[in-house]
Parts: sequence; C-alpha cells; structure tokens
Amino acid sequence: MKNLDGLEELIRTIPDYPKPGIMFRDITTLLADPIGLKKAIKGMAKPFEDGKVDAVAGIEARGFILGGAIADRLECGFIPIRKKGKLPWKTIGQEYTLEYGVDVIEIHEDAVEPGSRVLIVDDLIATGGTAEAAVKLIRRSGGNVVGATFIVDLPDLGGMQRLDALGIPRHALIAFGGH
Amino acid sequence: MKNLDGLEELIRTIPDYPKPGIMFRDITTLLADPIGLKKAIKGMAKPFEDGKVDAVAGIEARGFILGGAIADRLECGFIPIRKKGKLPWKTIGQEYTLEYGVDVIEIHEDAVEPGSRVLIVDDLIATGGTAEAAVKLIRRSGGNVVGATFIVDLPDLGGMQRLDALGIPRHALIAFGGH
Repeated sequence: MKNLDGLEELIRTIPDYPKPGIMFRDITTLLADPIGLKKAIKGMAKPFEDGKVDAVAGIEARGFILGGAIADRLECGFIPIRKKGKLPWKTIGQEYTLEYGVDVIEIHEDAVEPGSRVLIVDDLIATGGTAEAAVKLIRRSGGNVVGATFIVDLPDLGGMQRLDALGIPRHALIAFGGH
Repeated sequence: MKNLDGLEELIRTIPDYPKPGIMFRDITTLLADPIGLKKAIKGMAKPFEDGKVDAVAGIEARGFILGGAIADRLECGFIPIRKKGKLPWKTIGQEYTLEYGVDVIEIHEDAVEPGSRVLIVDDLIATGGTAEAAVKLIRRSGGNVVGATFIVDLPDLGGMQRLDALGIPRHALIAFGGH
C-alpha cells in the first residue's frame, strides 16, 4: 500500500479526539480540496472500473460523500447503509461490536438486487467492524460483495485482515500507522 | 418547474411516515437506479455548470450522497454541513426551527474560504428551515452562496420562497404538491 502523492498531507490529524490517546484522521480538509477530492474518488474507484459493479453501498455518513460520486463514475446505482432507525422503508439490520457495547446498521430489505455485484465504500477502515457488518447485510440480501474501498486504512487495527477472512478484495489509498 | 422524464416514478412514496398524514418521498429507490442517479446528479448540477463554483456544501445525510458527486462533476471541493456534535474540528453552529422545538446544524469554522462561491446541495426542500440555516452558516463563514439545488421540492411548504427572500438562485428537479 502506498500513499498517493500529496493526498496524505491533505488529511488533518486531531489529537485526543474523540477521546484521549486517539489520533483522529479528519478527511474534511481533503474533501474541501478540489484536486484532493478528485484524486480520492478516482483512486478509490480505479481497481473496480473493469469488473462490473451494479451498485455502490455507502456507509453513513462519510461513506455517502464518496459513495455517491463513485457510483456516478462507475455508472451504477447507490445503496445507503444507515444507522438504526434512519431508513424509511422495511429494513434488515446487522449488529456489530464496538469497544464498549454493540451497534446496528441497516439496509432496505429491497435495496440489493439478488445476484447483483456490490462495492462497499467508506472513508476509513479501523477494526473493520462496520465493514464486516456491511458485507453481512449485502450477502443476507442476496448480493455479491465484489470489493470494499476506503481513503484511509489504520493497519494496526486489523480491519483489512477481517475483510481478507471474508474473501473481499479491499483497497485503501493511505495507511496511517502508530495506533 | 417540470418533472424530468421518468425521475418522479423512481421515487417511492411512503404514506404516514414518519407520522400519520405525512407522505414521505423516499429517494433511495431513485438512487438505486443507475440511470435515475445519473440524471439526478446531472440535472442538479446543470444550472451551476457555467458559473464558477468553488465548493459544494452538502447537508447531512442524504445531501452528502448527491453533494459529493456534484462536487466531482463541477471539479470543486466538498464541505459537509452536519448535525450538532458530528464534526471533529472547531465549528460554528446555526439554530433552525422545527415543527416542535429547535435544532442545530454545524460547519467547520475553517471550511469556507472567505469570498468563495458555494453551492448548497440537499435531496429535498420542504419548509426550507435547514436550507436557510445552511445559507446563514456559509455567509457567516465569509462565503457567497451561489445557489441551492435539490431533487425534490414540496412547493406547498414554501421553502423556495424562503430562499428567494435570501436572494439565492434555487433549483429542483421534481415538485410534489398536495402537502
């Protein structure tokens, strides 16, 4: 994994956010930069341009910003994966473990066309708990997950290995070590 | 305002959501359709292609899906406007009135370059309370709001008139009456 030229410098690191000891990687400074935004979207989409993708599944909320643009570039549909209680139609939910306790993400029960090829998009992968829950939601909906793509990977937290164990091709533009 | 051919039919109407008497316009069925998604993004961006836009400000959460793609098409940056407490850096906040009580949206205090030209993006305009708060946030940050663009307008709720009163060029692809 290599850092795309100049992209890493556009990310703001906020020490001790949201709590002491965490170095928060704030991508809003990258998104605000026209060249940075375009590089990120192109770079995230690139490995999946040739394989046919039927839909991008973006994870709320920052995955929406990137997922909509990647769907537009790949000329496919967009499916939102949201926090519990946010989708207006019938949903299926998937629990995942946080540091303390559990959380739930949801997808509309008719969002994924059975047999369709779905690409998961989020801004960052840490432990991979949310990404794994997203994979399960799409598989339970009858979809095939053809990949997962991120701007930032925090390799010390092992999220990519979790996707490997699920057999999901995965891609990130930048890795930040030291966690 | 005219309905773009076929776009209106892709929107799912959910009666009595989130409460009795409300006809909820669910755009997720439109977003999931590759042609619908592309038409929506192109149509929303079109009136602002010639005027120079420096940044798209997308309103959480559905405005993120469309705003990222519109920023990519207009080759500009993207600025998130989020619910209170969601942005990691220093913010400025703006209250707006709901049916019962008030809510707050926030923007990073350094997100808008002073003098820059900002386009506001959301999926739907109803009373215009959120859109007006977004205009105020961008103006307080020193930016010029060059327009606001939506998929759906609910004209009976008067949101567009509120933007007119603020001098904001506004655009929507579909109008649903009867509210």
